[in-house]
This record gives sequence, C-alpha cells and structure tokens, in this order.
Amino acid sequence: MFKSAGVVARFDKKESLKLAKELVDHLYKKGVEVYVEDTLPSELHKHAKAVPLSRMKTDFIITIGGDGTILRTCLALPKPEPPILAINMSVRGFLTEAEPKQALEVVEKCLQGEYIIERCMKLAAATEENEFPDALNEVVAIAEEPTKLLYMRILKDKEHIVNCQADGLMVSTQTGSTGYSLSAGGPVLDPEVNSFVLTPLCPLTPFHPIVFPAKTRLTIEVEKPKRTLVIIDGHHRQLVSSEPLEIAVTKSKNVTSFIRMKENFYHRLRSRLLFKGSR
Amino acid sequence: MFKSAGVVARFDKKESLKLAKELVDHLYKKGVEVYVEDTLPSELHKHAKAVPLSRMKTDFIITIGGDGTILRTCLALPKPEPPILAINMSVRGFLTEAEPKQALEVVEKCLQGEYIIERCMKLAAATEENEFPDALNEVVAIAEEPTKLLYMRILKDKEHIVNCQADGLMVSTQTGSTGYSLSAGGPVLDPEVNSFVLTPLCPLTPFHPIVFPAKTRLTIEVEKPKRTLVIIDGHHRQLVSSEPLEIAVTKSKNVTSFIRMKENFYHRLRSRLLFKGSR
Amino acid sequence: MFKSAGVVARFDKKESLKLAKELVDHLYKKGVEVYVEDTLPSELHKHAKAVPLSRMKTDFIITIGGDGTILRTCLALPKPEPPILAINMSVRGFLTEAEPKQALEVVEKCLQGEYIIERCMKLAAATEENEFPDALNEVVAIAEEPTKLLYMRILKDKEHIVNCQADGLMVSTQTGSTGYSLSAGGPVLDPEVNSFVLTPLCPLTPFHPIVFPAKTRLTIEVEKPKRTLVIIDGHHRQLVSSEPLEIAVTKSKNVTSFIRMKENFYHRLRSRLLFKGSR
Amino acid sequence: MFKSAGVVARFDKKESLKLAKELVDHLYKKGVEVYVEDTLPSELHKHAKAVPLSRMKTDFIITIGGDGTILRTCLALPKPEPPILAINMSVRGFLTEAEPKQALEVVEKCLQGEYIIERCMKLAAATEENEFPDALNEVVAIAEEPTKLLYMRILKDKEHIVNCQADGLMVSTQTGSTGYSLSAGGPVLDPEVNSFVLTPLCPLTPFHPIVFPAKTRLTIEVEKPKRTLVIIDGHHRQLVSSEPLEIAVTKSKNVTSFIRMKENFYHRLRSRLLFKGSR
Repeated sequence: MFKSAGVVARFDKKESLKLAKELVDHLYKKGVEVYVEDTLPSELHKHAKAVPLSRMKTDFIITIGGDGTILRTCLALPKPEPPILAINMSVRGFLTEAEPKQALEVVEKCLQGEYIIERCMKLAAATEENEFPDALNEVVAIAEEPTKLLYMRILKDKEHIVNCQADGLMVSTQTGSTGYSLSAGGPVLDPEVNSFVLTPLCPLTPFHPIVFPAKTRLTIEVEKPKRTLVIIDGHHRQLVSSEPLEIAVTKSKNVTSFIRMKENFYHRLRSRLLFKGSR
Repeated sequence: MFKSAGVVARFDKKESLKLAKELVDHLYKKGVEVYVEDTLPSELHKHAKAVPLSRMKTDFIITIGGDGTILRTCLALPKPEPPILAINMSVRGFLTEAEPKQALEVVEKCLQGEYIIERCMKLAAATEENEFPDALNEVVAIAEEPTKLLYMRILKDKEHIVNCQADGLMVSTQTGSTGYSLSAGGPVLDPEVNSFVLTPLCPLTPFHPIVFPAKTRLTIEVEKPKRTLVIIDGHHRQLVSSEPLEIAVTKSKNVTSFIRMKENFYHRLRSRLLFKGSR
Repeated sequence: MFKSAGVVARFDKKESLKLAKELVDHLYKKGVEVYVEDTLPSELHKHAKAVPLSRMKTDFIITIGGDGTILRTCLALPKPEPPILAINMSVRGFLTEAEPKQALEVVEKCLQGEYIIERCMKLAAATEENEFPDALNEVVAIAEEPTKLLYMRILKDKEHIVNCQADGLMVSTQTGSTGYSLSAGGPVLDPEVNSFVLTPLCPLTPFHPIVFPAKTRLTIEVEKPKRTLVIIDGHHRQLVSSEPLEIAVTKSKNVTSFIRMKENFYHRLRSRLLFKGSR
Repeated sequence: MFKSAGVVARFDKKESLKLAKELVDHLYKKGVEVYVEDTLPSELHKHAKAVPLSRMKTDFIITIGGDGTILRTCLALPKPEPPILAINMSVRGFLTEAEPKQALEVVEKCLQGEYIIERCMKLAAATEENEFPDALNEVVAIAEEPTKLLYMRILKDKEHIVNCQADGLMVSTQTGSTGYSLSAGGPVLDPEVNSFVLTPLCPLTPFHPIVFPAKTRLTIEVEKPKRTLVIIDGHHRQLVSSEPLEIAVTKSKNVTSFIRMKENFYHRLRSRLLFKGSR
C-alpha cells in the first residue's frame, strides 16, 4: 500500500500547477503523506512537505508534465527509485500513462493497488575521472561546439570493434529507442529485449546502428577533440577531458519503474509517437 | 576428430571447381571419407561419394563460394547441420572464413581440431498450411508482383502491435542483420544479442525496424493481397495463400554452425562489408 | 469553356459509382457532352457515351478514386492529355483536389473557369527495342523475381557515372517524389524544381539518391540478370530483355495537367502525406 | 595568363608546409607574383608577400589541405573569388583536384592555361540584423547547446510550407550535398542541378529532405529557443537572437570557382567519398 507520495510538476504551465494542487489535496485527504518538489510555488506546500528531488524517498512519485519532466526527475531521485505515475501535460508525452482528466482515477487505482509495474533498464556511464547519473533514455557523446566532428574508436568488452567519425554517438536503452535514437535513425527496441543500441549522429562515413547485449561493456574512446560533452537524458550535461578519453557504458544496477494500468508499449507507440497513418 | 567431410562448390567458376578437387584429393589422402554434392562434375567423384545435400551427414562441410552458396547449403542440409567451413570464392563473402589460398591451411587446422564453433540462430517460419525450411539470414514476405503493396498486421505473441503497408516485411536473424536487412535500413545485431529484427521494405507510411527478443512468436498477417510470396534466405521461394494468411516466425530449435579460426565478427564487418572508410 | 467532360471512377466502391452518376447527370443537365470509361456499369451510359480511356478526347477529365485511379488514367489518355479534376475516393489520395462532398462545387467552378492548371513533368522511358508509356510518378527497373539483385551501371548523357547493385532502381518525377520514391528513402522535390531523382531500392552497398537536371538522359544499363521488369507508375508492367539491356529515361515532351482551385502542394504534403505531427 | 598566385596551406602538417614552400619557389622562378597567407611561417615569406586571405586578390589560389582548408579560404577571400586549385593534403579531400605528387604538374598546366573552371553556386544567408559570409557547402541553424530541440517554421518565398522540430536544419548547395547534408540523410545533387536542398538534423517527427529551385527565398523561422547558432561551412559560427528570428537563405550572386584538369564530379564521388564497393 502506498502511504507516501511525491508530486513533481512542470511549473511553466498553469494547468500543471492546478492539477498538482488537486492531487496534493486529494492524497492529503486520503491520509497519504505528501511531498512536493521544493521549486514548486508555496500554495502547494500547505498539505505537503517541500523537499528537493534527491530527498523524495516516497512510496511513489507522480509527475505532471511530459517526457522531459520524467527524465529530469529520474536523474535526481534517490536510489532505489520510487515508481513513477506519469500524468501527461505535454504535446507528446510518450512515456506518460494517463491524461490529466484521468489523473484522479489512476491515482485512486494506485492507492488501491490496481496497477502493474514496468521496470526499465538504465545505463551507467563513466570515465576514468567522472561519474554520471544513470540514463533512462540515452547517453550521448558529442562535441562541445555543435557539428564539430568526433573521431572515435568503439570497444566491446575491451576489444576494438569499429571506428566512427560523426557529430556524436549515443547509447540508448529500450526506453530511449523511441526517443532521440529514433530521430537519429536507430531501431525500436521492444521493451523485453535485453539490449541497448549504439546510434551515430550524422556519421561522416556509413555507420549503422548496432544492437548489443545488455551485458556488454561498451567503450567510446574519443581520439579528437580533447574535450567532449556527455549528455545524459538530454538534461545532465558534463564536459569531460580525461586523457585518454574513454567513456564506458554498461547496464546500470538501477532501474526506473513506471506505474501502468496495463501493458501498453505498442499502444503508446501507435497512438503517440510513430507509425502514424499505419493504424 | 573429423572423419568425414562434405564438399560443396559453386560450379559457375573454374577456380571453384579446381579448389574443390584439390580439397577432395587432400582429404582423401588424409584418410577422411569425402562426399561431394551430386551436381558437381564427375571428375570430383573419383575420391568422393556424390550425394545430394540433403544426405550429406558428415562431420563437417566445406563450402567454396560466397554467402549464396552457404545459404543454399544450409537450406538443404540434414538436421542437426554439420558445421561449415566456408572458403570465399566471391566478391564479398561476408560469412566466409578463409580466402582460397588459405584453404589447405584451414582445412588442416580443422583436421587437427584447432578451431572454434560459431553457432548461429535460425528462424522457423510457418503458416497454417505450409512449412518452410529454417532461415539462417531472413524470412521475407513480399507480393508476388514486384512493388505491389502488402497490407499487414503485426502480432507479437498473438497481441496485435502495429500495422504496416509496405512492399514487404522481413524478419532477420543476427547473422542476416548484416545482409538484406541492412540494405533495407535495419540495424546490425551483435552476434551475442538474443534477438531478431523486423525490417520493412519501402514502407508507405513511416515504419521503423523493431528488435524483438528471440523468444517472441511474431505473426505477420497479410490482409491483402490474397497470395503472398515467402522467401527464405533469398533462395527458397514459396507462394502461400491460406485464409487468413498468417506467417508465424519464431526462433528455430536448429542452429547453423560455422567453423572459425577465431572470433572475428567485427573484423569481417570492418573489412568486408560495412563501415568502409571507418577503419 | 469546358464543353465536354470524361468521367473515370474506381468501380470497386459503391460510393464512387454513385458519385460518378451524380456528376454525369449534373454535367448532362448543364449541356456538357459527357463520356464515361466503357468499363463502368451501364446505368452510367444513359447521359454519357461509353469509350475506352484511349479515346477520351475531352476538355477535361474527372477521376473519382485515389492516386491509383489517376495514374492508370494518365497512362492511357490520348495526347495531349486533357486536364484532370481529381475527386478523392481513397484513404490517402495525395494527388487529388477535392473530397466527394465538394465534388459538385468544384465541378461547377471548373465550368465557370475558376481554376488554375498545375502542369506536371512526365518521364519517357525506352530501350533499344521497347517503348513504354510516359510516367507521371516513376519508372522502376526491378528483377522479375522479387528481391533478386540487379547489377547496374548508371550513365548520365552517355558518361558512366556510377554502378549500383540493388533490388532495383527508380527514376522519379517531382510528382512521384512524394510517392514510392519517398518510401525508398528519396527526397521530396518541390514542384518547381526542374529535376528528377534516381532512388535505389535496397542497395547492397551504400548508394544515395541523386537529383539530376531534367535535361539529363539517364541510362540504366542492367548487366545481370538478362530479363528485367520495367514498371511505369505501378501499373504498366513490361518485361524487357534486349542485349545490352539499356533503359534510357528522359523528360517527356508530354505533361499531365491537374485542375486545382489554388496552389496547394505543401498543404497537401502537410495534411495528407508527410511530416505528420509537424504541423 | 596567371600572373599572380596565392598559396594557402594547413600548418599543422609538415608535408603541407614543405609543399607550400616548393610551390612558392617554383612560381617565383616562373616569374609569377606570389602571395602567402600571413599566418604561415616566415620561411615562406622569402619569395612571397604575406597577406591575410581577405586581401589575396590574385589570379588564382592554391590551397594545400583538405575540404576544411578550402572552405575556410572561400569564407575569407575577396569578391569576386579567384579560382582555386586544390591540392589534397588530407584523408578525404573530396573537393580537391590533385594529390601532392601531382602538384607541380597541375600548377604547370595552370600556368599554361590547360584547365577548365568549375563554377559552384553559393548560398547567401541573413537575418534582419545579421549578415553572414556566403556558404559554399551549407548554412546550418542549430541550438547553441548540442541536442537541444529547435522549433521551426519553414517558408518558401514567404509562404509557410511546413514546420519542423529537430536538432537543426541545414540548407545545402550542390557542392555541399556530398558533405554534411549527406551525413544527415540528404540526397546527392548533381552539379548541374539548379537547386539547393533543405535537410533536417535528427528531426523529432518524420521530415524528409526537400529540394528547392535555386531561385527560392527560403526562410527558417526559429520559434524556440530565442538564440540560435548559425554555422556557415562548418567554420563561421555566429549566435543570432533577433525577434522574430528569421534566417533567410537565397542563392548568392557570388560563386566559388575551382580549377579542374577535366570534369570529374562522379569520378571524385566514386573514388573518394561514396558508393564504396560500387566502383
């Protein structure tokens, strides 16, 4: 049973804050201990404790926003991550579970235990000198200056497998395979595939996406330039410059959990994102 | 220890037949019991028994040719398939292990047990009324008349997941992912990935390749036209017309085994096929 | 002023025949001399002469159907082709001008001279021994047996420019660039571009679409196999086998004219075909 | 007759400087007035005047380097640009004419008037408040922060034609079509095509390259974010932030001229860049 809840909302939209308030009040009435992200306006603090995301150790988290809100939340949540119920307050919201008008109903179902948990693999990235937060969608290595070429060697479990000259490279999870990786020409990975995919960004010479088993330790060795930008889930940006510059990517021991009313990956794929006109 | 060998060779090239004769003679001298495909010329029958591929129950098979020769051999071999040592007698020969000048040397190594076995997943395809031979590379569903549109529904484990209107659809193994699927825009699957990939041929509406776990029962339901051509590994062509027309594709219980001197997938990828200019 | 009209309709849909009858009756009442395609049912012959498409020398043609109906009509019309008013009776109908409920209104506008003419370039294809009808969308060269590789040399104005091994090659007009060529990975050509585009079908080795000036004489020389299927606009299919097998493609002296209420290429592009979700 | 010459060389390679010195000396002996870029080492100043690129008003320019050297030279040359003889001192050098060992021979041919001139269209880009140097290859609009989405409206001759959400957009010339645009999925434009191509960078929703007639005034209106990076030929980088942010791209009145021994676009395409394996 869920006894505590965290509420996270995008704060550039009135409707989002209004819904957040409704949900906080509803949960409070139900006797649930409620937390809200401390950046939210004070009118939300009445029935809830304001804390930073990193301290939101609750039974579940409600995000109100789109995939961006989910991704920045996941980056900051304490481990193990509480499961996320994602309410869509965006144009697309591929990862979200319910529309705003369904919010009260699905929250109620959560409280009654009528839900399933979808566990999503994350990626752990690191260099000799740097650690990064785990990625739910993708790890990108790209030049600091847009469109500057990266000269890279790719290693699979320490064996050199291929070179790549491109604007950048990304390693994407199954979850991320319907996001940025798809825009760059990568395949869709079924959620049950125990794999991740390496997708190039504007490769100079033909370079196809490669799907690796999840147990792979994939290393991107950047030969040039000396500084490279690592971007986790589009939000966490970190400039790295160790020498040699080797970015190792592996399956993380952490997962992100989504609260779903039922399994619906392909339903979401059809209706929100892809394959438009194919229904 | 290998006590018997089968020799298969493309017969449209003199060098191929010449090498086949050399290898037959060499194996014969070494006391190995040799079989040759019965379509080969009679000068090869002196030291070898001529049999059809379907009766070539030997300890290993030597193919002299390119990927086409390997694929048509695999389609016909008795099960379980003897391991294949593939000598390259073609322009490309992505799946082959050795060049003609190395043939005697690698055969010798085989006889001495100095090799490793690479096991490759195959796909089993069937309709209600038809069986097909297992595919090492890919199963293609396509209209009988080139460029005619197929209207298809895709099911994963009996659940409808997406529709597709395209010239055709293919389901490709890891091995096949560097072949026809790649030409159609599919990703490379690392040989260790326990998956197969669904790749569309000229889809009318955006449709991206999807990677499924190998345990998936994938069904392609062809709504129109009523007759569809199923092509296995580019060689086996069979017109099917059951109603409803459902082509089920699963991981086969059979595998194809290649004799390798060492693991070399990415070496072959770099040098023979892809990523040209990336080395 | 339009004094005569031809009516062409797909006859696998009741609504299509019903609308055809309405339009025939309307035109007849207005004093327009009406012709219908002779394959249409006899209830349409009351107020109209039944003739084959090849004898439909009228001031304009009304097509009721989708792009397929338009394409097969263009293939058969006498030259110079009467302008076409295309009513949409299909799912997509990218080339069509009006929906069925607008049919009477746009026909009326036509009779009053309130329209513009969109002239579309066509392609002329020929071999030493064969002529083909002009293509409004594209000329395809493909193997008779689906997925069999074609070995081709490409010549621009008799100069050899590049080779291609692929399932096939197509040469597409501006009009065709949003059709089959797009499915095969080709670019969109703005209607005002004086060009055509060469697009490969599943090329074995990397081969990118190439845009040529309309004045180019492009020759596809098929080295293997000896027989090749030439497909014009998806409807006209002709097996050719001259030796050497050279398919020359040039801009035709004929054009297809569409009756439009206003210029609307990008409107049709946005709403019917492409870039879905981009509006 | 060429009476004056400018010499530009990459200075991160010894061989490049050595060849520059040889050519300067050779031209000096032949009585040609020689200029060198003022950033080159002083040992090159003995027989040549050191000037910045912007003052290199000579009869022709010799560049020693790759496409990068050519592009940065074109950006800075005075107008009308002197013709360029490009010696390849790079891995790729798609635009270059001759290898280092042929340098003296082709320079000699230049002095004897045995050459042809290839004239290449350039693009002019501007905003309300900013001017940019002309682009030989492409104009890129991209977010300042790598991988941040741009929300754009595209206008053709002031008519809104389509929207695009992508990492960026590029407008590429025929010359540039074999460069960055190709990496991003654009088509090859034959040098004789009077067109340019709009190619998206990782579009969020399906968006195909569009080929426009050269007379088009194409406008990219960036709705978000408020600041956008404009990159000309990969070298000139300028942050723009006018409101509304409209980047207009048209055919420039300037051209870049290359000195060629003969027409060789497709030879260069085959041998240096593309279609590898296709001969």
